[in-house]
Amino acid sequence: MRDPIRVLILGTGQMGSGVARLVLEKQGIELVGAFARRAGRDGLDIGPAIGLDQELGRKISTDLQSVIERTQPEIAIQTTCSTVEDAMDEIRTLACNRVNVISIAEEMAYPSYRSPRAAIELQRLAADNGVSIIGTGINPGFVLDTLIVTLTGVCTDIESISARRVNDLSGYGPSVLKSQGVGLSREAFIESVENGTVVGHIGFPESICLIAQALGWDIDAVEESRQPLVSRVRRQTPFVTVEPGQVAGCLHKAVAHRGGVAVITFEHPQQVLPELEDTETGDTIEIKGKPDIRFTGTPELPGDTGTIAIAVNVIPRVLSARPGLHTMLDLPVTAAMLGDARDFIR
Amino acid sequence: MRDPIRVLILGTGQMGSGVARLVLEKQGIELVGAFARRAGRDGLDIGPAIGLDQELGRKISTDLQSVIERTQPEIAIQTTCSTVEDAMDEIRTLACNRVNVISIAEEMAYPSYRSPRAAIELQRLAADNGVSIIGTGINPGFVLDTLIVTLTGVCTDIESISARRVNDLSGYGPSVLKSQGVGLSREAFIESVENGTVVGHIGFPESICLIAQALGWDIDAVEESRQPLVSRVRRQTPFVTVEPGQVAGCLHKAVAHRGGVAVITFEHPQQVLPELEDTETGDTIEIKGKPDIRFTGTPELPGDTGTIAIAVNVIPRVLSARPGLHTMLDLPVTAAMLGDARDFIR
Repeated sequence: MRDPIRVLILGTGQMGSGVARLVLEKQGIELVGAFARRAGRDGLDIGPAIGLDQELGRKISTDLQSVIERTQPEIAIQTTCSTVEDAMDEIRTLACNRVNVISIAEEMAYPSYRSPRAAIELQRLAADNGVSIIGTGINPGFVLDTLIVTLTGVCTDIESISARRVNDLSGYGPSVLKSQGVGLSREAFIESVENGTVVGHIGFPESICLIAQALGWDIDAVEESRQPLVSRVRRQTPFVTVEPGQVAGCLHKAVAHRGGVAVITFEHPQQVLPELEDTETGDTIEIKGKPDIRFTGTPELPGDTGTIAIAVNVIPRVLSARPGLHTMLDLPVTAAMLGDARDFIR
Repeated sequence: MRDPIRVLILGTGQMGSGVARLVLEKQGIELVGAFARRAGRDGLDIGPAIGLDQELGRKISTDLQSVIERTQPEIAIQTTCSTVEDAMDEIRTLACNRVNVISIAEEMAYPSYRSPRAAIELQRLAADNGVSIIGTGINPGFVLDTLIVTLTGVCTDIESISARRVNDLSGYGPSVLKSQGVGLSREAFIESVENGTVVGHIGFPESICLIAQALGWDIDAVEESRQPLVSRVRRQTPFVTVEPGQVAGCLHKAVAHRGGVAVITFEHPQQVLPELEDTETGDTIEIKGKPDIRFTGTPELPGDTGTIAIAVNVIPRVLSARPGLHTMLDLPVTAAMLGDARDFIR
């Protein structure tokens, strides 16, 4: 049997730490190193840095080129950023050293939407260096694209698709809460949407592009809106207290039009403690077509665990793929990897 | 752009006719011929034979070799049978003439389970002739395998999987109703299970093998049971009347064990008019793991339309694949093919 798969993790925050811990649990796969952007992480032992009780004897590096040379990874999981622009430098360094890349940067799920020139460069980097590059995650990457497209496989025709993802932000810290406007007044929320500090969900256009490409639809335009979810009750988490009349979260919507008709409609209300106003969390997908399809999952597929899982489960798919820039819909379906990781490479 | 994809249909019964009509509706794809097993179909015009108002000017043939030579298909969709054994002769003829094969024979979803030697031959036929061969359908092929495996992709670990598919047989004719024991007494049902005339669902072991292979699980044994669904009310369809106390259908269950523990449990009650006893149709998938997942679709994904759709939607995936015997989990996810079929070939 081949040697264990050598994995490098980029980023040791909440997601990177989760990915690293999962890699350590799996068989046939080895965590050979960790890169961090923050200077303060340099030289720390990886173990405690990712939340383990014991040291691993391997240190975090803030110099990507040198950690690649030292640890010789065959694949890297990038958890350092959200945008393609911000992801490019690291991916360039990885690919040029013949390291395959899995990125959980949201925009990397379909990089050509916001960064068409970067997508061309990514394709060339992958081909020139014989590696595969893919963006994944729970959303974009799964709930509002891969799962929907999978369901369309049993349709002979489709008129429209709508989906709604209701989640609970109670487990998240200040930066996520701020990005959804939690705790703001209604006025401050509207201002923050305008100045870009309240962003809502990153990934609607990427999911829409994935669906449209899979079905063969040309999309004319994508409209997005972000509205405040004003609480009628007091909602308290370890990180925020929302008084009645304040904003508990952001209702982010996106509508994609084709020939002037709305064909894909997404709603993603993100808030703290939705159950306090009798709102159940969950994922609902409705396809209007032949046949009509309605699937509902309750509670919602969890964002953090789900992203960590799919980023690791996709490793053998990426190593089995032809070199290139891929989306989740280019590769065979990603399954939970419950045995030795090497057995999943085809 | 390349010429339209040339498709041959095998079988002109309910499923074959549905597939043929859908092929005729799609762009970039051409129905070049039809083969039927029944001598009485020979020479009939395909149009009326598949339920169209007008003739197509192409005739059904009962000689497979000659219809292949005459029509030069690049892919065939086989709807003539349920077992690998029964499918082999036709697939052999197709592959030897370099025709790719999509089969909706239930056992073809994972042929090596019941016919390991045939599966080896299929692999060799595909490789030697440079074609791809795949089994698909709504179930096996989708609801209880592909869809479940897709959901596992966001899991870091899985303890067990259970799924329940509740459907309504009211639209089906005598042969399907007989295979589920509809209209029998309880005693006659039990006898018919023993003598093999009541078979229940064909495909549980195939779906279990697909899941097990995808996850890396070794399954020790699969147990199946078939119980009568005895009606408390009168249920009447165009083809059968079930009096109270008679059998309205078959509750077919399968349990797969791993290390002595039940890890996959399927229940598939098939009956006429379940709503008369307040039973809602639908598909439910439950995964016990990290995280727990519960997805429910209501009503159930329809068996006939769904199988017809996926058999046609998978065409470009098969034509894009490396030659070989494939399962639905080897290829990129099959999406509804809403544009020109040729644009979906990669």
